[in-house]
Amino acid sequence: MKQNKVIIVGGGLVGSLAACYFAKRGWVVELYEKRPDPRDPENLGTRNLRSINLAISTRGLSAINRLSPEVEKKVMDIVLPMYGRMIHNLDGSTAGQAYNVFGKAINSVDRGRLNEILLDECETFEGTKVFFEYSLEKCDMDAKTATFKNLKTGEIVSTSGDLVIGADGVHSVTRRFLQYYTKVNFEQVYIDHGYMEFEMRAKDGQFQMAKDHLHIWPRKTFMLIALPNLDKSFTCTLFMPWSKFNSIKTEEDLNTFFKENFPDSIPLFGQEEINLYFTNPKGSLCYIKCSPHHYKGNAVIVGDASHCTVPFYAQGMNCGFEDIEVLDTLLCQQAAPLINSKDAEQCQNVKTSSLTSDQIESALINYSACRPRDSASMIDLAMHNYIEMRHSVNTLSYKMRQWLEGKLYSIMPNTVIPLYTMVSFSKISYTDATKKWNRQTKALQSMVSVFSKLSFITAATLLIRYSGPRMGLRMPSISEIVKIFRK
Amino acid sequence: MKQNKVIIVGGGLVGSLAACYFAKRGWVVELYEKRPDPRDPENLGTRNLRSINLAISTRGLSAINRLSPEVEKKVMDIVLPMYGRMIHNLDGSTAGQAYNVFGKAINSVDRGRLNEILLDECETFEGTKVFFEYSLEKCDMDAKTATFKNLKTGEIVSTSGDLVIGADGVHSVTRRFLQYYTKVNFEQVYIDHGYMEFEMRAKDGQFQMAKDHLHIWPRKTFMLIALPNLDKSFTCTLFMPWSKFNSIKTEEDLNTFFKENFPDSIPLFGQEEINLYFTNPKGSLCYIKCSPHHYKGNAVIVGDASHCTVPFYAQGMNCGFEDIEVLDTLLCQQAAPLINSKDAEQCQNVKTSSLTSDQIESALINYSACRPRDSASMIDLAMHNYIEMRHSVNTLSYKMRQWLEGKLYSIMPNTVIPLYTMVSFSKISYTDATKKWNRQTKALQSMVSVFSKLSFITAATLLIRYSGPRMGLRMPSISEIVKIFRK
Repeated sequence: MKQNKVIIVGGGLVGSLAACYFAKRGWVVELYEKRPDPRDPENLGTRNLRSINLAISTRGLSAINRLSPEVEKKVMDIVLPMYGRMIHNLDGSTAGQAYNVFGKAINSVDRGRLNEILLDECETFEGTKVFFEYSLEKCDMDAKTATFKNLKTGEIVSTSGDLVIGADGVHSVTRRFLQYYTKVNFEQVYIDHGYMEFEMRAKDGQFQMAKDHLHIWPRKTFMLIALPNLDKSFTCTLFMPWSKFNSIKTEEDLNTFFKENFPDSIPLFGQEEINLYFTNPKGSLCYIKCSPHHYKGNAVIVGDASHCTVPFYAQGMNCGFEDIEVLDTLLCQQAAPLINSKDAEQCQNVKTSSLTSDQIESALINYSACRPRDSASMIDLAMHNYIEMRHSVNTLSYKMRQWLEGKLYSIMPNTVIPLYTMVSFSKISYTDATKKWNRQTKALQSMVSVFSKLSFITAATLLIRYSGPRMGLRMPSISEIVKIFRK
Repeated sequence: MKQNKVIIVGGGLVGSLAACYFAKRGWVVELYEKRPDPRDPENLGTRNLRSINLAISTRGLSAINRLSPEVEKKVMDIVLPMYGRMIHNLDGSTAGQAYNVFGKAINSVDRGRLNEILLDECETFEGTKVFFEYSLEKCDMDAKTATFKNLKTGEIVSTSGDLVIGADGVHSVTRRFLQYYTKVNFEQVYIDHGYMEFEMRAKDGQFQMAKDHLHIWPRKTFMLIALPNLDKSFTCTLFMPWSKFNSIKTEEDLNTFFKENFPDSIPLFGQEEINLYFTNPKGSLCYIKCSPHHYKGNAVIVGDASHCTVPFYAQGMNCGFEDIEVLDTLLCQQAAPLINSKDAEQCQNVKTSSLTSDQIESALINYSACRPRDSASMIDLAMHNYIEMRHSVNTLSYKMRQWLEGKLYSIMPNTVIPLYTMVSFSKISYTDATKKWNRQTKALQSMVSVFSKLSFITAATLLIRYSGPRMGLRMPSISEIVKIFRK
């Protein structure tokens, strides 16, 4: 029997999850990663110690669960659940805002440790080979051949397979080759804001703030956030317009800035950490949307390679993991058309490793029919959520809507669903979530509008009826109004 | 005295115009072009014989005039002015639509011959070297060094200068290097339509249709257009959704398609030319927007490399030529701040070849402050004009507005200006033209709206006053209306 081979470019989170999935479905898997093996003690120094923390939520966990409930357990052992936002006001007071009326949580997780779990898992499969320190040099997508350079020896190696998967991140080389082979609509936008990370260390072996919340200091045009780590520290990220970053030039500027905006954080960081402002790297923020994501039955890009987002909805990795679940579902559909391919249990033993290239192409066509649109919706949601996190969370209208929507949701959980719940705690597609939310917004607005019109008419009627006599006014009757038009 | 050197990548229309400008301003110029010299008789076969015709209008001519009125004369000697559109209806009838109430024309021109005029011109300057068959391999934008490969010998050469200009078209390699050096927002969109060219030959040494019009067969979702050539042929282009292209599979399909849609064109083409449908190449249509266009004072991209448009406003080359005029204006402003750098005559003898790199950077910052936005507006206008050309031109509301706007324009030519005139016959920036047109649209709409409301009130009043008695209705007086609210 034919056994398909997949070449995966990139062994980060999404690439290593893809490797697990294809191995589980019976494929020969070759995974090529540019960086050194993160599990090798020698390479500890090469691990990227500064990167925006991750929060894994329903979509990400669902993809891991479909792969293996045991792996999901391993992941859940290293996460810290966050049940809501903790808003830090200017006066030092704090206020919690639950993410979900039923108490659901998103989970702070260490990127490196999650990656290691997935790499370990994919290596448990026979027929899976992982190559570290190999960079993609060329990809012939007609011949399904990828050429890599061994970064240690300089050697050039070529490998052919039945499918090439590009999971090589925002600067994806696979994506660049895809653009040679097919017409790719493409959008890349840098936003005018950048970010910088700080560390808030544990004190006396304890967290310095509540560990079960995502902490936010919303300051309208900028914000500081903090996510808890297993070692009881917090990784804090300052998101701010570049112009604001550039305006802080001296230690005095910096101290004034922290005193005016995040006074309660100063003792928690300590002056030394704050002073790292002048040496810490600043990161830029951009998003990338493109379409299609595939070429024939030969190649497909997934994860950040196909959709890079700003981090404000914590959906980048979740969406990338969902990519792999969707891809697997569509391949299972080809291999076993008679079962419900979305059902993890029914698919438990399905093998997709002997699909023909036509079948793979059908799956990839279906993939590009939904994922580019859904990931673009996710990016739009993340752009919108930046305004929500740094500003709206502190406004009365936002709080009122959250309250009202929360109440309606708890009464009729299938009819009204808050946006945050649809995005983070459901598997409703990002596009459908956006549409549903727009409908809900309209419905709430017209409720408010009808309510205010009724109030106005009632008030005016009451005014004329009860104060009218004093003001020389009275309510005309309908027949009187009709009469003046009659001859 | 310092003499700056510019390295220009790409010797197409915009690159060769740029070479002329920099040579005129005293720079040492090196121009590198990937293709062979189009003027070399040996290379006639390599000229791209099929490409959408060009129409040069005010912006393009202005840029050539600023360079040299003599060159403008040479160009005007090889153009064919088109004073309007000639609409070909389904029944074979035709109707002319002038482009401008004052009789202005756009000019059909042969890309190859225009390119030759500009290449000849730049070679008249001492200190200008043109290299053909050199492809850009690497560009170090910090060192202002470009590395080319001699395509005939395989030799690699590097050259350094004070400024690198990328005029290397839609697939610009310079742009790709620019993206390494600076954060470039980028958008590339393929539209769902493609194009195919046909030739309508001269008959008995004569044009087969009116030579002073751009001919259009508007068919709602697709269209055929024709532009005259000096050899009395027309180059015709069929623009159509890919799905429609794909639906024509047999000769019978093709003949039915032409008979149903362009019956009057069949005898003009001849069956043989129509049958080339099955072998003629099909082109795809995309646009590219990006920003910024420059890196420090070191590099800038111009023309299609920085803005690629769909061809429906015939502004691609015109905008590219305007790029060079704007760039020259901004450099002259640095070199001679006391004169009006927009005035061609005042700048006649200005040299920009001893500008410092800071001054060049200032000019490029100003360039990126306007050109990305203006060229994006041009692209939006072109996308909109596709609908106008293939459909709106045949609608009553379009014709009424054209008529009304034309009338207002002829009475007050500074207040109301039709969009086509602003784009093709003025140098108002594309962005301002779009804004002004939106304002005009709103003003016309509210005129129509006020007019229809007044008509309604007048009609209702007249109805009640004159037919009211018979219908038992009369007009109440204001005092009667007030009275019924009074006690």
